[in-house]
Amino acid sequence: MEIDFEKMQGLAPAVIQDAATGEMLMVGFMNRQALDMTLRTRFVTFYSRTRQTLWTKGETSGNRLEVLAAWTDCDQDTVLIRVRVLGEGKVCHTGSRSCFIQELPLGDTALSKEASR
Amino acid sequence: MEIDFEKMQGLAPAVIQDAATGEMLMVGFMNRQALDMTLRTRFVTFYSRTRQTLWTKGETSGNRLEVLAAWTDCDQDTVLIRVRVLGEGKVCHTGSRSCFIQELPLGDTALSKEASR
Repeated sequence: MEIDFEKMQGLAPAVIQDAATGEMLMVGFMNRQALDMTLRTRFVTFYSRTRQTLWTKGETSGNRLEVLAAWTDCDQDTVLIRVRVLGEGKVCHTGSRSCFIQELPLGDTALSKEASR
Repeated sequence: MEIDFEKMQGLAPAVIQDAATGEMLMVGFMNRQALDMTLRTRFVTFYSRTRQTLWTKGETSGNRLEVLAAWTDCDQDTVLIRVRVLGEGKVCHTGSRSCFIQELPLGDTALSKEASR
């Protein structure tokens, strides 16, 4: 199966979901090499856009992400990975389990007013 | 709350999750205007990279995505939206509920051999 990395200049978003709870944990980016390492080693490895290097999630913190299953989507430009979180289970560098910790307000809020200026 | 759209030339990945089941449904991209419309109208609107225009998911098929809650992540460059699927519930244009329908093989498979050439 071929992943389309060309839409994003060699990268594809990789969505990480807790296989046990369904919780969305984080989104990172993978290039071909990172995806290959992820599938082959069964530990999530991303490509860091800022550092321009591969990094295996949790290699220093111990909160590694063990790959239980992986999918791509209908146009093959995104990857979904269902994982088991190892270590202390703190996926986010802020110390929380998920990186999605900031709720956005719905309705006619400050955000939408700001954006419509 | 300010979303960082600059990392991806004006776009941020938007991960869509079924609020009832936790199922990952699709990933699209939003620019500032698409996110604003999504939060304000409470129906998911993406920015199409190929057509370079906003599109409200399900506006023709009826399978609209009603926003129940939205989050951003720790570095504020990704959006997670938990939705209720309206209409027939077929989110993917292939007719399936989720766009993530193609499983990727784990281990030392054809994909990894191909990538390591």
